Amino acid sequence: MEQRLSLVTVGVRDLARATAFYERLGWRRCLAGAEGVAFFQVGGIGLSLYPCADLEGDTGVSLTTEGSPRVSLAYNVRTREEVDSVMAEAEAAGAIVLHRPRQAEWGGYFGHFADPDGLIWEVAWNPAFPIAADGSITMPA
Amino acid sequence: MEQRLSLVTVGVRDLARATAFYERLGWRRCLAGAEGVAFFQVGGIGLSLYPCADLEGDTGVSLTTEGSPRVSLAYNVRTREEVDSVMAEAEAAGAIVLHRPRQAEWGGYFGHFADPDGLIWEVAWNPAFPIAADGSITMPA
Repeated sequence: MEQRLSLVTVGVRDLARATAFYERLGWRRCLAGAEGVAFFQVGGIGLSLYPCADLEGDTGVSLTTEGSPRVSLAYNVRTREEVDSVMAEAEAAGAIVLHRPRQAEWGGYFGHFADPDGLIWEVAWNPAFPIAADGSITMPA
Repeated sequence: MEQRLSLVTVGVRDLARATAFYERLGWRRCLAGAEGVAFFQVGGIGLSLYPCADLEGDTGVSLTTEGSPRVSLAYNVRTREEVDSVMAEAEAAGAIVLHRPRQAEWGGYFGHFADPDGLIWEVAWNPAFPIAADGSITMPA
């Protein structure tokens, strides 16, 4: 198994509401004709919003009762100031701010918000992880 | 907020066990000296394994009781046969097979496994999503 992943699929309670949130952030769907799912190209991978019941049906895992681990997504930015502006942008789009940006022990600066389904996003300035023009990150070896 | 993400962070119960699983799949850590977290470069993003309690501490969200949505990760392959071989490889590394590969309504072929923490991975052959040499996918517009 190569060291990569292709899609992050988020089981959502209300597909229209979830999709509207990301569209308010300025994101544009791919496969706009697809029904029952919303796909967003995010760099070299895909983010898909998919009703929880369908994710349960596909996997056979009861997502309300079984112990699947919690996941957070991170959005890294190029400057410290950009953490504040992205957090404000997310809040304006309807996100819940989990905590205001603060200094990190590891030398950076970060905040967390939750989308309308409670999906956790970290917004981080981490000078140790360079960001390429296309938005991809490279971590040190 | 640009249309991208930087890291997927998985809150795990046992960091050593979780790390060992991905290393059995042949993955190699970045930042091997980092303590309390395991980072893997996966294409242009990062996957980090991080103790659930620390993820709770960072976010202020109780991950055992609150309604964060469930997430699955997808690993797309270039041929139908490769779905079977990757599922077998994951099972040999200690994954739980959620269902054996089957034909998908959308024309592909897919299986699901869970890692030792219950994180759901889909292994899919989807000829509609081309895979580049570097493993990144491109979804149609």
